[in-house]
Amino acid sequence: MYLPDHFRETDPAEVAGLIAAFPLAAIVAQTDQGLVANHIPVMAEGETALIGHVALNNDMHRIMSDGTPVLAIFRGQDGYVSPNLYPTKAAHHRHVPTWNYQVVHVAGRISFQHDDKVKRAVVGRLTRDHERAMNGDAGWRMADAPRDYMDGMLAAIVAFRIDITGITAKAKLSQNREAVDHAGVVGSFEARGLDAMAARMRRDSAD
Amino acid sequence: MYLPDHFRETDPAEVAGLIAAFPLAAIVAQTDQGLVANHIPVMAEGETALIGHVALNNDMHRIMSDGTPVLAIFRGQDGYVSPNLYPTKAAHHRHVPTWNYQVVHVAGRISFQHDDKVKRAVVGRLTRDHERAMNGDAGWRMADAPRDYMDGMLAAIVAFRIDITGITAKAKLSQNREAVDHAGVVGSFEARGLDAMAARMRRDSAD
Repeated sequence: MYLPDHFRETDPAEVAGLIAAFPLAAIVAQTDQGLVANHIPVMAEGETALIGHVALNNDMHRIMSDGTPVLAIFRGQDGYVSPNLYPTKAAHHRHVPTWNYQVVHVAGRISFQHDDKVKRAVVGRLTRDHERAMNGDAGWRMADAPRDYMDGMLAAIVAFRIDITGITAKAKLSQNREAVDHAGVVGSFEARGLDAMAARMRRDSAD
Repeated sequence: MYLPDHFRETDPAEVAGLIAAFPLAAIVAQTDQGLVANHIPVMAEGETALIGHVALNNDMHRIMSDGTPVLAIFRGQDGYVSPNLYPTKAAHHRHVPTWNYQVVHVAGRISFQHDDKVKRAVVGRLTRDHERAMNGDAGWRMADAPRDYMDGMLAAIVAFRIDITGITAKAKLSQNREAVDHAGVVGSFEARGLDAMAARMRRDSAD
């Protein structure tokens, strides 16, 4: 990924926060069938792995042998930046449009697990996180479903683990702009409902 | 991509609409340096190509020779779906969590153009589209910037074109759920500001 120094995301908390807030990864690999991408919600296991699961019917676990290199791409919010958002435009007109966004690229090696205990653990952890975030104490739990139904659902999935070999993150957030122009972009993002990206830009301003 | 029939997006207007509404593509290629992904706003040129530009400093145009296979991944909105959103849960509890999303995968072969006229045309078309959408008649135009500045900016970019070899699109939008459960998901997405995805689901219901 093209990554000028001023756009490099170096804060581990920001990287972990983006993965947690935007967990639907595009998991890409080069296979005998060419480039293959699947969109799968995952979660970090510490700083060393990502975990998740796919349908048994998903060819991923057949065309990718254990150890296959994959790239898991996480993306936060993104938005067009018009030169009109820069107050300094009126003074010198030396601006062009651009696009702001936040991404995390996790490179790693994938392996698949068919073991029932592993699958229950992965599903349980993903469920707990998302249900707590959305429904708090009223969150759905695996135990709410009948046992025969849950057994059948678990039999129809495969767990996977991506052992991380490298993380590259980019926050393209107008860091190379004057403060007044930076603020103009933040205001536009807030007006467009791009709150997560605007909040990150406000944190940058406060530093 | 794992793509059950009921999630296959077959409407060319929906595919074109998603690319136009979410134009920041993740452009992925297998290279001598491994899997490489860059996030670049592009636009469709009819149904046969995608066009865009990158910084001259972006290695893409050096590590990908003309004709290199690439996958351009477009993604719309996405959101967690809790079993709590399904009214039928109370009756039988035979539901598990899932994730809804819309994606378009454009496979193609990339080539790069250093010609000044081509670069001006690509920048002009992208700018016109985005400025019209955001600013209407008050949209910024290339001619608003001083000529020497614009010449310098154009000298610092490379245009590219991806000749399309195949498109695969997936709309994972609760099509396999009962009407009342489908409606529960739509309501939640609307409450969470996922308006584009909710609107598509409402169009599905009306069919």
